[in-house]
Amino acid sequence: MSDAGNEIKAFKTWWSALAAEQAKAPPSLTEQRSTFDIIHGAVPLPEGCEVTPLVSDSVRGELIVPKHADRTKALLYHHGGGFTFGSALSHRHMVARIAEAAGVVAFNMDYRLAPEHAFPAALDDAMEDYRYVLSQGFAASRIVVAGESAGGNLTASLLLALRDNELELPAAAYLLSPWLDLAQQGDSYEVRREYDPMITREALDFCATAYCGELSVKNPYISPLKADLYGLPPIFIQVGTDEVLLSDSLEFTRSAALAGLDVRLHVWPDMVHAWLLFHSALPTAGLQAIKEAGEWIASQLGAPAKP
Amino acid sequence: MSDAGNEIKAFKTWWSALAAEQAKAPPSLTEQRSTFDIIHGAVPLPEGCEVTPLVSDSVRGELIVPKHADRTKALLYHHGGGFTFGSALSHRHMVARIAEAAGVVAFNMDYRLAPEHAFPAALDDAMEDYRYVLSQGFAASRIVVAGESAGGNLTASLLLALRDNELELPAAAYLLSPWLDLAQQGDSYEVRREYDPMITREALDFCATAYCGELSVKNPYISPLKADLYGLPPIFIQVGTDEVLLSDSLEFTRSAALAGLDVRLHVWPDMVHAWLLFHSALPTAGLQAIKEAGEWIASQLGAPAKP
Repeated sequence: MSDAGNEIKAFKTWWSALAAEQAKAPPSLTEQRSTFDIIHGAVPLPEGCEVTPLVSDSVRGELIVPKHADRTKALLYHHGGGFTFGSALSHRHMVARIAEAAGVVAFNMDYRLAPEHAFPAALDDAMEDYRYVLSQGFAASRIVVAGESAGGNLTASLLLALRDNELELPAAAYLLSPWLDLAQQGDSYEVRREYDPMITREALDFCATAYCGELSVKNPYISPLKADLYGLPPIFIQVGTDEVLLSDSLEFTRSAALAGLDVRLHVWPDMVHAWLLFHSALPTAGLQAIKEAGEWIASQLGAPAKP
Repeated sequence: MSDAGNEIKAFKTWWSALAAEQAKAPPSLTEQRSTFDIIHGAVPLPEGCEVTPLVSDSVRGELIVPKHADRTKALLYHHGGGFTFGSALSHRHMVARIAEAAGVVAFNMDYRLAPEHAFPAALDDAMEDYRYVLSQGFAASRIVVAGESAGGNLTASLLLALRDNELELPAAAYLLSPWLDLAQQGDSYEVRREYDPMITREALDFCATAYCGELSVKNPYISPLKADLYGLPPIFIQVGTDEVLLSDSLEFTRSAALAGLDVRLHVWPDMVHAWLLFHSALPTAGLQAIKEAGEWIASQLGAPAKP
């Protein structure tokens, strides 16, 4: 078996044991948030990478400047976590590596979480975040927006909201294992269920209820899979075969293509939900996928800044 | 408008005028075959590329050796043309460029055409072609199989036939604008019809009838979209948004992903059916796509041969 194959096999075994243990005494949402931040926040950053909190009344987040980054190009990143957990802190190590691979700076953002803050709080925050990056002197054509899982949803919704409000669109969007249908109706919930050690329809239903509040999961800003995708910029999607969320990526790709968009999809065999976040345990496929994402982002942002 | 945008716009205008002219006095199949070979056969090859007819009792085709090719790695290519026209000659210029971009040699094959030879004649020939490449000393892991349109169908069917006969599979498969559902049932036949100047459902129905003979279009070796795709090697698909065949690529990608395969899809905006074949008229997007295909093929074939 390949290195990637051995790593993912061990990871799935470890995760399944952890999930079985947690099922005996499920953590509260507060505990879940705290544990997630502590574990992921402890993963080392790439060497020479600088992180500075943003000073702003309108947004919360941080600026990540990898070594050798082109300071005229930006990645605007919104983390995942079912809209109910996760943070700029928990995702810092992955965002830093993607930004480093792309040769750009990253705005790694916090946003209001559910159930304390239901839709549209997170989307309103994402819109503010985009305006903030523009206000820092980045042209829209020098910005790629990105996110994984619920952050992929937020990124797709952000594109729709920018388009519908006739605001200037970013150069491109990168989505990792995006959650795009909050009704959990994809075929992969059945076909790939036995392969996915991490995500269940029940867990997503809980998050969807928290995020939707009084609104319908069919709202296209809540489930971008329900939206007409005309006019959006180029999109790159990475997803694993071994996740129940696989169909969200497949159906979104289909919808984007039929709308005439430039869309690329790479389905990674054996990989689980948002495996790039676990690159410490999955160094082969995790780092390969980070490199692939970074190269695609770089390819969408044109020539380097003139010295 | 970009260079690629101007080029494809002019190309569509030219093609539509040509199609309107041809509709007045439709050429016979014999004329169509001859014209296609003359026009495409006249496109220059890359510099320093050598073409040698294969000497064999079992196969018909040619060996293309681009300058600087690694002679231990091979692309096995089957041309398109609705199973009723096209040849190694007509596709030589494109296959040579893809092989050059990949740094490999290419076996550019002829096969028996319909309606003179209905299914399974072409697939039988493709199986012989694969055996022939193995017999020339290429390990299966050093072979990528490829084709566009009907040749993409033949390539997918070849993979299925090799798998089902428990023969060793090639390293990977590259499909350009593949025709994978001979029933023409994809959504793109409606949604993208107005954008496609080249292909109609009626023309494909003619070819499907010629190819199927007495058999059903639902036979999975005739319409690989109907097949279970388990166990196939990595697949890369390029397709344009402006082709009625778009859905074939989207649905095949979906099926491949749900079967757990490594699958990549790049949907190119504004591009028409098999636009790489028209790289003379579409030098920007045509040559970019050839480069992309070549790089992917190279990435699937591992390290260069030891000197």
